[in-house]
Amino acid sequence: GAFSPLMFARAQASTFRLEMVSSFPASLDIIYGGGEEIARVLDELTGGDVQITVYPAGAQVGGFEVYDAVSSGAFALGHSAAYYYVGRNPAHAFFTAVPFGLTAQQHNAWLMAGGAQELWNELNAQDNLIAFAAGNTGTQMGGWFRREINTPQDLRGLTMRIPGFGGEVMTRAGANVQNLPGGEIFLALDTGVIDATEWVGPYDDEILGLNQAAPFYYGPGWQEPSATLCLYVNLDTYNAFPPEIQEAFRTAAHAANELMLARYEAENGPALQRLVDSGTQLRTFSPEILTALRGHMDEVHDQNASGNEFYARTLESFTAFRDNIREWHRQAEYAFQNFIYDQSAQEEAGG
Amino acid sequence: GAFSPLMFARAQASTFRLEMVSSFPASLDIIYGGGEEIARVLDELTGGDVQITVYPAGAQVGGFEVYDAVSSGAFALGHSAAYYYVGRNPAHAFFTAVPFGLTAQQHNAWLMAGGAQELWNELNAQDNLIAFAAGNTGTQMGGWFRREINTPQDLRGLTMRIPGFGGEVMTRAGANVQNLPGGEIFLALDTGVIDATEWVGPYDDEILGLNQAAPFYYGPGWQEPSATLCLYVNLDTYNAFPPEIQEAFRTAAHAANELMLARYEAENGPALQRLVDSGTQLRTFSPEILTALRGHMDEVHDQNASGNEFYARTLESFTAFRDNIREWHRQAEYAFQNFIYDQSAQEEAGG
Repeated sequence: GAFSPLMFARAQASTFRLEMVSSFPASLDIIYGGGEEIARVLDELTGGDVQITVYPAGAQVGGFEVYDAVSSGAFALGHSAAYYYVGRNPAHAFFTAVPFGLTAQQHNAWLMAGGAQELWNELNAQDNLIAFAAGNTGTQMGGWFRREINTPQDLRGLTMRIPGFGGEVMTRAGANVQNLPGGEIFLALDTGVIDATEWVGPYDDEILGLNQAAPFYYGPGWQEPSATLCLYVNLDTYNAFPPEIQEAFRTAAHAANELMLARYEAENGPALQRLVDSGTQLRTFSPEILTALRGHMDEVHDQNASGNEFYARTLESFTAFRDNIREWHRQAEYAFQNFIYDQSAQEEAGG
Repeated sequence: GAFSPLMFARAQASTFRLEMVSSFPASLDIIYGGGEEIARVLDELTGGDVQITVYPAGAQVGGFEVYDAVSSGAFALGHSAAYYYVGRNPAHAFFTAVPFGLTAQQHNAWLMAGGAQELWNELNAQDNLIAFAAGNTGTQMGGWFRREINTPQDLRGLTMRIPGFGGEVMTRAGANVQNLPGGEIFLALDTGVIDATEWVGPYDDEILGLNQAAPFYYGPGWQEPSATLCLYVNLDTYNAFPPEIQEAFRTAAHAANELMLARYEAENGPALQRLVDSGTQLRTFSPEILTALRGHMDEVHDQNASGNEFYARTLESFTAFRDNIREWHRQAEYAFQNFIYDQSAQEEAGG
């Protein structure tokens, strides 16, 4: 062939060793795999020049400490979710998920072609960071419930594990909101310490065994219509990279972003079937409940935007993009799916 | 910083020049941009070692001749759509779009995590090619019509430009099917030589000026619920690449795949609004029409699978994946969107 590996030999056999701290446990192999995929791609693209060691949550820093650890330069890289850092600025949530927000395809469009990457860069640069989308769970499920939820009144007094904006919404709906790390959820639900929990979706929820602790599995995941994970890079480190290594990280992040979603999408269907076979009962939140929760989310947005110029500006970009893309989807992708599901419902009814 | 560009200097300043033939005209900037994006990424990743010249359709070979041109080795690379090559084997269509098939997110999942890449490799290897997903239009529109289509009977005798499987379906529905290249569609529609045409979606259709030639714009694009474009690489050339260049092409294809869809998704909404402002009337095909067309597509599948072992095997993989992922989407992503659209319809009705 015209190419020879020797022609790509480096002037020096220099190896750069970088460390990546992940917010996720290795047991959640698809989401943790997003960080591993970036490490694999960098190794391949550079012919082994860039070696990245990935540490699962807790091995070096806690899962919610990734942002600070990369910001400080203690670690060059992180694989995490921006909405873990809403305590620093609630606007971080827009770059992962907000309740009643965007699907994965729509969120990618806002980030990559709708001006959101520039907003995200502005926010992260304050902490000496830059981030790129690097994985998506797709639309999540609404969670596991020990009893059925038929009306907004049924949410009053319900003790539920649900973090972030979803938790703020549920608090306003009258629930007692808890936040528990993944490893503690099963026992709390199984013993009735909590009445309900959300986690991710069929594949990950099955790994935690949540179907053994509660019978009712509600959709849709109004709290996370999609969830974008991200690669954090220390900004000083990133700026010191030669251009081809910067491009390698940006391109690897695209690959990880697309592959994680593909894997979740391919695995969630079979996992859902296994859950149903194990006795799980599927339920869908009523429009009345979802409408009430959406009203509470509007209140959360109003409160966050008040006195936070960046949040208000990001909300404006997000809302305009969301409204516009929904009108487009109404004509094409949603209209197509509406036919598919309405038609299958009629055929099941013998129509 | 710890990194210096010099550390990544090549042993020799070797430059490899490759040529890519595109099936698309440069005027359709988003779809043509998929090939340009791959060229840009390869340039960046290799620090300029790999230089790719991209030729629009017709500059070197015709838009439908890309497969043969790369298969023969006349050109190393192509950016095209597999379903242009159904004359060689109708199974090529599965790797771009089939009527009533998968959305972009679902098609990515089938290709990247559902076993379809392996099937595609098997098909392409027969012609000394390998292909990777490298762009998506998202769900397309159903097309432009000079008169309204209310029942399946209205399709009888209709002269429509619609290629591929969509055209076979419309033929079975009683239409007179034409195939015209993009540059000839406007005049044919404007003068009434054809009664209807499909093209892509708002952004691309506006570039062709189709809104000036017909008033009714129908959704959804049942014929292409999504359309995956692809990078073709001559297999001998690919096998001769060093591993880091192979990985660079695979990773660049992921980036191009994701970015093209993001760009279409971000641009179609504003383009749709401009079309409506120009007088375009939006319409949705009735369930009765879509049900009839879907029945015809089942006939096309049956005919193609008969005596074509590879088609039958691919159809089996595709159908099983489609049915499974639709059950998953029913609980989460579709349930979420169903609430969004039903609720907005009720609010518009004052409900």
